[in-house]
Amino acid sequence: MKVVDPATVETPIGYIDLARVRLNAERIAKYAAEHGLGWRPHIKTHKSRAMARIQLDKGAIGLTVATLREAEVMADLTDDILLAYPPVGDARLERLLRLPASIDLKVGLDSHDVLAPLAAAAAKVGRSVGILIEEDLGLGRVGVRGPDEVIRLANAAQSFEGVNFSGLMFYPGHIRMSVPEQVTHQELLNERLLRTISALCEEGLNPGIVSGGSTPTLWRSHEIQALTEIRAGSCIFFDREALEVGVANAEDLAYTVLATVISTAVPGQVVVDAGSKALAKESRSGEAGFGILFDRTEVVVSSVSEEHGVLDLSGIDWHPKVGERVRIIPNHVCVSVNLQEELLARDDGTHCFIELEARGRRHWSV
Amino acid sequence: MKVVDPATVETPIGYIDLARVRLNAERIAKYAAEHGLGWRPHIKTHKSRAMARIQLDKGAIGLTVATLREAEVMADLTDDILLAYPPVGDARLERLLRLPASIDLKVGLDSHDVLAPLAAAAAKVGRSVGILIEEDLGLGRVGVRGPDEVIRLANAAQSFEGVNFSGLMFYPGHIRMSVPEQVTHQELLNERLLRTISALCEEGLNPGIVSGGSTPTLWRSHEIQALTEIRAGSCIFFDREALEVGVANAEDLAYTVLATVISTAVPGQVVVDAGSKALAKESRSGEAGFGILFDRTEVVVSSVSEEHGVLDLSGIDWHPKVGERVRIIPNHVCVSVNLQEELLARDDGTHCFIELEARGRRHWSV
Repeated sequence: MKVVDPATVETPIGYIDLARVRLNAERIAKYAAEHGLGWRPHIKTHKSRAMARIQLDKGAIGLTVATLREAEVMADLTDDILLAYPPVGDARLERLLRLPASIDLKVGLDSHDVLAPLAAAAAKVGRSVGILIEEDLGLGRVGVRGPDEVIRLANAAQSFEGVNFSGLMFYPGHIRMSVPEQVTHQELLNERLLRTISALCEEGLNPGIVSGGSTPTLWRSHEIQALTEIRAGSCIFFDREALEVGVANAEDLAYTVLATVISTAVPGQVVVDAGSKALAKESRSGEAGFGILFDRTEVVVSSVSEEHGVLDLSGIDWHPKVGERVRIIPNHVCVSVNLQEELLARDDGTHCFIELEARGRRHWSV
Repeated sequence: MKVVDPATVETPIGYIDLARVRLNAERIAKYAAEHGLGWRPHIKTHKSRAMARIQLDKGAIGLTVATLREAEVMADLTDDILLAYPPVGDARLERLLRLPASIDLKVGLDSHDVLAPLAAAAAKVGRSVGILIEEDLGLGRVGVRGPDEVIRLANAAQSFEGVNFSGLMFYPGHIRMSVPEQVTHQELLNERLLRTISALCEEGLNPGIVSGGSTPTLWRSHEIQALTEIRAGSCIFFDREALEVGVANAEDLAYTVLATVISTAVPGQVVVDAGSKALAKESRSGEAGFGILFDRTEVVVSSVSEEHGVLDLSGIDWHPKVGERVRIIPNHVCVSVNLQEELLARDDGTHCFIELEARGRRHWSV
């Protein structure tokens, strides 16, 4: 890779520390292995082949994707892809089934309306797609509710040519396992999950895969009973949310946005060039602002407009000058990475650019 | 342009109505001309040569940009560019001064720390860059405060080789002129602006340009005394904010995000494929959610995650099915466009793609 002098790189730009990325991947893979779990990281966080390669090298069993572009790009790196998103519409179905035949393809879905056309299209090209039925275990976003509906869909998957029932999928990201009063949520999740699994087994529909870990719940994934794999993605970089939730410490953070002070004119604040088009305006309940400084975590990005981020310096004894660079920890890393064209990466004292090949929605070859 | 069948286009995608874009551009140019104002639209909204061409055809006097990429792309279309953003750092300065010599280049800034290196770099290449001094007239983001500081900077600009003092710039977007109690804000703005202009004139520093209009204040820009031009950008498309502020009606909206229902599993809602990576999670004070439906403005996108937008259907008698398409009016159009790779455009019954050449930060030729 071409070595880059970071001083010559225009800000704002996403900035990663490859040593930390490797350590994070290693630690997650080790945790998963210790608990007999597979790690199938969601690559929406980084959208980069180089990052996926690190995850696979460290022991990931396959990759999880949300878009067809992501699937197309990652198909070079693994033969095990989970599309954790319903392929609704002819365009998506066509792209999905054009993926190399060597790939063991699994799809997460929550309705007959998605299952039936997928099965028909897969049967037509002589393919068998594994189906993970998404169950809503409390997040209230997507997912069928309760064992009856899961069984109905699983039976449909077994009856159709072109697909086969492979297991269950859910997203536990709404559970903050570090919050004691939320332990009941976890118990509730376990209770619901076991009820569904028992009901499936009684019908002779053994779920080979039970896929569920998220980054907020990462280190307590083993407490989710019957889980076979975790999909945690943002843990490759972590972010401000991860710090607040307690799933990461400052030394685990591998992604920041490198920004430059561009105005000090208004008293009590300075303005940097990272705004909603670099950090994202990702408000979070219970947290002020849109990011904090890496080297001064007490400094908050209190507001953002498109190309402006305001650092609130009231009560802070630090007076950066125009031109000074700062590193910002965004609230949510995935949406910030998605706003970058490439990442600047530090590795062993040198710097290089990392491509984000899976960004966007166009067909990879276009 | 290649004709596209919209039914085959994968969602989510930004969708524009070119007839409305032309009407919007025409109406704004006409309004500006009637009031003796120039229209120098900010192209950060669309980042597209095709849209800028429409603006220039309809009478825009030049273009406003925020990034060097935007400047490089638009340099083919006009010889009048205002970089309404301080070019901090060597990389930005270098790119700025590499723009064709034929371009009458103006830069907005608020500090000596930006002015001095810019002047030195411009002098070195034998260029003269017009300087608009940014004054903070109440937004509290960037801009010097009060006539003394403006005069100091204007005098510095006059004394340096490589630059010349061209006028004043400010952003009045915080003023909601449609809100009666905010008229005092406007009076205050006028008062401050006139005070600065008088002070400048007394020093023999006549500001040739007084640049200030924003979309929220668009149709009352003529009430800002001494204004010579408006930079209003998002008015080419408008958005939910424009509707709420009253600067646009439903029939003026030229941009929506085309999305598809992907889950109806959780009662009381449906989920579409446009989330924070297509709409942006652009929360606005006093407004629920992240967008509304174009055809059913009572339906709100109540929450978003990366690839999911939840349409709250509680109390609504409409039951869309998986696969059904909807059009979403985002809260803030500029950040949504920035998340697209291209736009799907309707023009006279046919559809085509519109490129967004000025997206991103890399050098245009790279």
